[in-house]
Amino acid sequence: MMRALALVAGMLAPAGAIAEGQVTDFPLDNGMQVVVIEDHRVPVVTHMVWYRTGAADEPQGRSGVAHYLEHLMFKGTETLEAGEFSATVARHGGRDNAFTSWDYTAYYQRVAADRLGLMMRMEADRMVNLRLAERDTVTERNVILEERNQRVENDPAALFREQKRAAQYLNHPYGIPIIGWRAEVESLDRDAALDFYRRHYAPNNAILVVAGDVTPQQVRRLAEKHYGAIPANPDLPPRTRPQEPPQLAERRVIMRDARVGTPHLSRAYLAPERDSGTQEKAAALALLANLLGGGQTSVLTEKLQFEDNLAVHTAAYYGGTSLDATSFDIVVVPAQDVSLTDAEAALDTALAEFLAEGIDPDALERIKFQARAELIYERDDTQKLAHRYGRALTQGLTIADVQAWPDILQSVTGDDIMAAAREVFDKRRAVTGFLDKKELTQ
Amino acid sequence: MMRALALVAGMLAPAGAIAEGQVTDFPLDNGMQVVVIEDHRVPVVTHMVWYRTGAADEPQGRSGVAHYLEHLMFKGTETLEAGEFSATVARHGGRDNAFTSWDYTAYYQRVAADRLGLMMRMEADRMVNLRLAERDTVTERNVILEERNQRVENDPAALFREQKRAAQYLNHPYGIPIIGWRAEVESLDRDAALDFYRRHYAPNNAILVVAGDVTPQQVRRLAEKHYGAIPANPDLPPRTRPQEPPQLAERRVIMRDARVGTPHLSRAYLAPERDSGTQEKAAALALLANLLGGGQTSVLTEKLQFEDNLAVHTAAYYGGTSLDATSFDIVVVPAQDVSLTDAEAALDTALAEFLAEGIDPDALERIKFQARAELIYERDDTQKLAHRYGRALTQGLTIADVQAWPDILQSVTGDDIMAAAREVFDKRRAVTGFLDKKELTQ
Repeated sequence: MMRALALVAGMLAPAGAIAEGQVTDFPLDNGMQVVVIEDHRVPVVTHMVWYRTGAADEPQGRSGVAHYLEHLMFKGTETLEAGEFSATVARHGGRDNAFTSWDYTAYYQRVAADRLGLMMRMEADRMVNLRLAERDTVTERNVILEERNQRVENDPAALFREQKRAAQYLNHPYGIPIIGWRAEVESLDRDAALDFYRRHYAPNNAILVVAGDVTPQQVRRLAEKHYGAIPANPDLPPRTRPQEPPQLAERRVIMRDARVGTPHLSRAYLAPERDSGTQEKAAALALLANLLGGGQTSVLTEKLQFEDNLAVHTAAYYGGTSLDATSFDIVVVPAQDVSLTDAEAALDTALAEFLAEGIDPDALERIKFQARAELIYERDDTQKLAHRYGRALTQGLTIADVQAWPDILQSVTGDDIMAAAREVFDKRRAVTGFLDKKELTQ
Repeated sequence: MMRALALVAGMLAPAGAIAEGQVTDFPLDNGMQVVVIEDHRVPVVTHMVWYRTGAADEPQGRSGVAHYLEHLMFKGTETLEAGEFSATVARHGGRDNAFTSWDYTAYYQRVAADRLGLMMRMEADRMVNLRLAERDTVTERNVILEERNQRVENDPAALFREQKRAAQYLNHPYGIPIIGWRAEVESLDRDAALDFYRRHYAPNNAILVVAGDVTPQQVRRLAEKHYGAIPANPDLPPRTRPQEPPQLAERRVIMRDARVGTPHLSRAYLAPERDSGTQEKAAALALLANLLGGGQTSVLTEKLQFEDNLAVHTAAYYGGTSLDATSFDIVVVPAQDVSLTDAEAALDTALAEFLAEGIDPDALERIKFQARAELIYERDDTQKLAHRYGRALTQGLTIADVQAWPDILQSVTGDDIMAAAREVFDKRRAVTGFLDKKELTQ
């Protein structure tokens, strides 16, 4: 069974492509939030349950337990054998999976619309009735350790991201890897998983998103029947994490590994996240990332690749949807025979020039036009929309925030973007990483 | 009232200067460990209670609570008014204080020997009967915030140490400051302090050290009376902290602050701690630190200060007494007009030369001779010995380890030191910090 570790994925593309009337939301009496996205073109639904908990909510020393629990949720309940959940989905012609990030853990199935009740019955069942055999918990831990071997230990770029991320956050648990530090994963067990489950899995900590060929009335009736029967957990802990202290010193992380094929440098500035009701700065940063590194006409591409021939690839990325402070990332892959040090100097020069020169109004219009175009493409993808709403709601945003985002993006001015750039491009809050192929000497 | 934040202080000087017969230890029935160091030259005793808990045992997001509680322990109990503890000590001609580190919190008084029972009565009282008025907890939090202002916020070198330490540890709580991150200290309150108190303060988590003009029989009688009456806490949590993952990438921390008078560079290699029964590597590292940076004839001083005139100060330090992995630190203050980059290159060259050239046998003999000499000086200082035993016992060592240390130091060979140096001087596990006076641009 494949499980994806969710990356903090792109959020530039605006949401709200489906008209507001097609998105309905209501709470159940037990506090579970319900979002319905209607799309009657094909008789299929995507059924997702998102928990407002993830790797950043793990107890100290138990990194990886949110993801471990996600795996174990496919083991049995009082009425389902281990593996029976996914087998049942498949028997009904559906697909299912789950993913874990720092801020959320989500489970979903895509099935024929008339199977929605069955999906809810099974998902509600494992929300409270999980039963874990000791043997299964040991086996699954080994599965994850092997997953870690393949995805992290055998990939210097992944190891580098882990080490760099740990240096990015001085205090916040975003510095720990979602899959967990190996030694801590090795010590995870049934009790650790069940502790996390009992603490965080409850209807009042969950969001149901149903997208597809259903009406809000149908979803409400089924949701009240299956999820509404589960009592709220009155002891749900407040969702507060250790916050970052002021970051006052530039950090650099240099990793050399003989397995590295393509040396590169990455710069990550600590950056504000998208917050409910005040998304303007995040919108400016999202456009800034596109202006700087979003394709062949972007500033860094032009300066470093075409003018100076110093780089073969440049990218900028802002992952703004986040419960706590996130990062603005820049990657440069130098051309052959260009050192990482020289590439970094060129990057710093290019950023300084950008801050001095300001924004080409044509480029900004082009970026905004692309954003509008993506709106139209997105209307076709209710699955993507379901994902967008689920993620936003687990990361501190509201449905209104998601729907306001496209207009906020369009209203961003060049001055807004420059102000955001000047605020965020402060090396005291940045980590610059070199991943190089040379072996370390001394 | 003055309170010292304990630094991880020097441990090169060997212990055991007092003959083994003068150090007696025994447990109380409730698990409290007792160490008596006899010294009948003056009719004075040092009475210390060490708790096996400190800043590295704090819950996530409550950094500073161990130190906050240390302050609050001078507030009242059921029978003592706030401030009455220290006032009583003073009225009897004594002095008292306390200190907090990552691995321990300790309270001590130095008084006339015939007041020992009174000290024990009061110390045992506040081990279990602390009563905190809301008002006092607010006042004391402000005292600590002001302490933080003076010692940290107004001192760029202190801020730099904090930022660097946070980058040194990727996962272990040694990365948080003992005094706490400011925003977290601001949120500490009475409940946080009392939670920590109830969890960690108990006779089975404490060590009593009495040094001075007493006999073990006197101490046993008084300790059984005062401390022996307190029941053990059966729920004492195991002392396990999140451990470091493999450190795979060199880190660098660069801070620029207009207030910096003397730019300097510091390099901290993650290093193994002194472990019970296997202190040999730590002994080699302790001698290595002295060889490299212990005074006018040390390797770095000769190479960087006298030969190359690149530095005005060099030092090397290994703080080996630690429950978990610690660091081997090197500091270089460049000469005027020498850049930190050039000073670092010279440091790296000097270290490489040292690794290639090996140890001058005369220098090693000299260092060992100094270590023996310090033994003799130390016989005069029972307070220092009390401190040494208390610290060792809270950091995973035994009395036998402390007493074996001088001989282990003398038995270290040049090859042992070179092997330890080759193991520890691995930049993948190091943080190099630049503290510079230039203001940051861009």
